Amino acid sequence: MSGETSKIGTYSFIAEPFHVDFNGRLTMGVLGNHLLNCAGFHSTDRGFGIASLNEDNYTWVLSRLAIELDEMPYQYEEFKVQTWVENVYRLFTDRNFAIINKEGKKIGYARSVWAMINLTTRKPADLLALHGGSIVDYVCREPCPIEKPSRIRVEAQEVASTVTARYSDIDINGHVNSIRYIEHILDLFPLELYKSKRIHRFEMAYVAESYYGDELSFVKQEMGEDEYHLEVKKNKDEIVCRSKVVFK
Amino acid sequence: MSGETSKIGTYSFIAEPFHVDFNGRLTMGVLGNHLLNCAGFHSTDRGFGIASLNEDNYTWVLSRLAIELDEMPYQYEEFKVQTWVENVYRLFTDRNFAIINKEGKKIGYARSVWAMINLTTRKPADLLALHGGSIVDYVCREPCPIEKPSRIRVEAQEVASTVTARYSDIDINGHVNSIRYIEHILDLFPLELYKSKRIHRFEMAYVAESYYGDELSFVKQEMGEDEYHLEVKKNKDEIVCRSKVVFK
Repeated sequence: MSGETSKIGTYSFIAEPFHVDFNGRLTMGVLGNHLLNCAGFHSTDRGFGIASLNEDNYTWVLSRLAIELDEMPYQYEEFKVQTWVENVYRLFTDRNFAIINKEGKKIGYARSVWAMINLTTRKPADLLALHGGSIVDYVCREPCPIEKPSRIRVEAQEVASTVTARYSDIDINGHVNSIRYIEHILDLFPLELYKSKRIHRFEMAYVAESYYGDELSFVKQEMGEDEYHLEVKKNKDEIVCRSKVVFK
Repeated sequence: MSGETSKIGTYSFIAEPFHVDFNGRLTMGVLGNHLLNCAGFHSTDRGFGIASLNEDNYTWVLSRLAIELDEMPYQYEEFKVQTWVENVYRLFTDRNFAIINKEGKKIGYARSVWAMINLTTRKPADLLALHGGSIVDYVCREPCPIEKPSRIRVEAQEVASTVTARYSDIDINGHVNSIRYIEHILDLFPLELYKSKRIHRFEMAYVAESYYGDELSFVKQEMGEDEYHLEVKKNKDEIVCRSKVVFK
């Protein structure tokens, strides 16, 4: 492979039985997990992975994730994820994804926005200064025909649900892991809704970390038919993340 | 491969970042997921998988699972799972597992007990009558030096925690999935305990199914130092499953 093609990483998966929902379709949390793993594989292969960054005292931080799909892989189906870098700015980079079904058809896309922080100062790093700016060599012109992550506003105040962060929620960094928020958010919707509709678009905006024992409160606001905006707070009023879910 | 060796299935994994806990070690829930997947791969390859059984209107039901380990794979480490059939009785079969670390050392074992049921009558099937009794051809003499699943008794009544079964808990059969119980049970222990000790042995006894909206109540009883017996009930007093957790 050469040129634009070699800049795209392709990874194969199978929809495992404990990774599908009651409809037999891969869950959004598991898909998110696979996307973030692919981001890790792809950047590691190019010398920008967490492991090599940690040596230099830096790490990647996921800021935004938007996923839009026409269908989800069914139990036991094989599927592929492709990922590439769309843009690199001084403080952020845009990484996109395509989800490809067993027949080779693109059934969905995702967009993500990442920053890099210094582990000591927690301050953002200048991506264009890292490794002599070589990250821009991986920028790739590949179409990603879904909207960019949008602004999410939640005006409602009524708490729909609270969850205390437990052992299973916490990752190696001591934070509630990015995937768990997705699961907790999707658990706010009744099973009835998932019987008649599926998630067409899902967005996460990660704002701050939460920790073991934090009481997470979830505010859910219906914004027109089939569209919900959500906010997760810790300690009553500190925003942890926001989310948008569009059913179809 | 031939003889006993060919009866053993070997499957490779990597400890993914969202599958490890705050210590960077693979979680018991994820390991359980991998073991059950391996059971599926191994039986499918031999004509006894869920897919071919469903055509005949049968399915496997997990009754017992016991896992004992000296260590858990660390984040990004490769590991292998081996599985084989130890015994086949009329109504149950014993399937064992070995967990092998990146250096090829056996770091743990697991035992599981399965029944097969008719999907229409929900009654157990005669394993020795299925496919002309050919399942016994896969029985394998391979050591599994951990104790069999034991009897778990919980006398305590005080409910430690309750969880309502949500969307993310439900599998394709409409039941709370076997792995979710493991996560909910391990969330009953404080992070402090996981900082100083690790799970040496973990057991599950699956008694009955629970469903979306069921209120699951968890009773936890300390049985001597570092050993806990747990019971999960639905609708206040119907036993769903029991568990034993031994820390070290």
